[in-house]
Amino acid sequence: MKPDRDAPIGVFDSGVGGLTVAREIMRNLPSEKIVYFGDTARVPYGAKSRENIIRYSKQIIHFLMEQQVKAIVIACNTASAFALDEVRDEFEIPIIGVIEPGARVAAEETKNKRVGVIGTVGTIDSGIHASYLKKLDPDITVIGKACPLFVPLVEEGWLHDPVTMEVTARYLQEFKDKNVDTLILGCTHYPLIRSTIREFMGEEVRLVNPAYETALDLKALLQKKDLVSAGQEQEEFPYRFYVSDLADKFKAFAGSILPYDVETTKKIDIEKY
Amino acid sequence: MKPDRDAPIGVFDSGVGGLTVAREIMRNLPSEKIVYFGDTARVPYGAKSRENIIRYSKQIIHFLMEQQVKAIVIACNTASAFALDEVRDEFEIPIIGVIEPGARVAAEETKNKRVGVIGTVGTIDSGIHASYLKKLDPDITVIGKACPLFVPLVEEGWLHDPVTMEVTARYLQEFKDKNVDTLILGCTHYPLIRSTIREFMGEEVRLVNPAYETALDLKALLQKKDLVSAGQEQEEFPYRFYVSDLADKFKAFAGSILPYDVETTKKIDIEKY
Repeated sequence: MKPDRDAPIGVFDSGVGGLTVAREIMRNLPSEKIVYFGDTARVPYGAKSRENIIRYSKQIIHFLMEQQVKAIVIACNTASAFALDEVRDEFEIPIIGVIEPGARVAAEETKNKRVGVIGTVGTIDSGIHASYLKKLDPDITVIGKACPLFVPLVEEGWLHDPVTMEVTARYLQEFKDKNVDTLILGCTHYPLIRSTIREFMGEEVRLVNPAYETALDLKALLQKKDLVSAGQEQEEFPYRFYVSDLADKFKAFAGSILPYDVETTKKIDIEKY
Repeated sequence: MKPDRDAPIGVFDSGVGGLTVAREIMRNLPSEKIVYFGDTARVPYGAKSRENIIRYSKQIIHFLMEQQVKAIVIACNTASAFALDEVRDEFEIPIIGVIEPGARVAAEETKNKRVGVIGTVGTIDSGIHASYLKKLDPDITVIGKACPLFVPLVEEGWLHDPVTMEVTARYLQEFKDKNVDTLILGCTHYPLIRSTIREFMGEEVRLVNPAYETALDLKALLQKKDLVSAGQEQEEFPYRFYVSDLADKFKAFAGSILPYDVETTKKIDIEKY
């Protein structure tokens, strides 16, 4: 059966961070509907095992398919790193992650072929950015660095703050020392401290936010599969939000990322999927 | 059926933090065996809902009872805050938490009746320390403050660090301003940055680490229930460790808290309980 072009896009993340990806999809594909799932009961994914992240991702995809989505975006770097290949093998629905789009633009943009990647412990230890980048250009040197304090600093709301600046300096000095000219923001929370990272790294270093590139990849994918929404007048609010815990807190944080209030967040029991 | 006096004590936490409580039990009740469970797949508990924390705690208690423990210590402030009353109603086995022992000693020690409490968002929002303290002495003023960056700073290993000092100053200045003379370390990770907290708060403020008091409460409970171990020569290592994810990382961190290497950590699927 041909999927419905007017079906929504499924987008998921370990929590609120993936809303930075959803935001880019809203901006760049304004006629598409979105069903967003934030796994707030099991957040963070960054220090958990491959095996558990794969299990979580499969449960969430089952839930999103029940919502009759036409395509799925894994808007979480750790889940993209650990689970994308596995779930593409298992499910027929088109699925994209956030690692490949970021790696591709970094490979295109670097001049001196020295690319830095920051992310969670899980994403960095997986070495997945390096493996994509090396496939694109074997001459690229990739330097990865896990930055586990960035997510809690963002969630504390200390976005422009002396503490965040000091932590940024501590984590990123290595990239200056090693002369990278391109830095991938390999975690969906990091665009929220982009200006602090920019201030430390300087104007000359290219910061890659994979969210934007992912939205463009999604657009290309929908075109290729003939799944672009007809874009008729939408009668109701086109975005639905689900979480696995504490819907109210999610709503408050979502309001700081998205350009409007999130009214209709529902909590579901993801362990049932 | 009378429980076996030589059965182990069950101790659980959302992750490694509860080992600071296990350590005090090992020191103060050296003839007791321990089965420790760290819920590393679902850590942290601090920002999750009451409902989920109760569900997690019940699953873990089912697991510990399968290990034939004779008593259970909830070595996690958030789980003690949300789940202790519920699980005491549901299970016959003796269960103690870490909130009441800490509150009791704080009520005894404060001179000016101004007590501060630091902990996770969940623990502080629950207001449970205040409710115990007010029962003990209605004249006590309780000032609570959630410190969500402390756990990731401890887990990053930045125990004596200018960043941790700055974050400490930011979080704790309010307690100086409000002239508290007693501060409860209401999260099991916090004793690991006790010296940084001490440096900021000064020698005159009493810091209460509920772990020690909890071990003494456990001792009294075992005596009352006639469950003290006969203390015969132990033939094998008396401590067993279980986790729900990434046993190796747990072992590494455990080694920094406990005075010996943790050799025998097993990973189990806690969602089955």
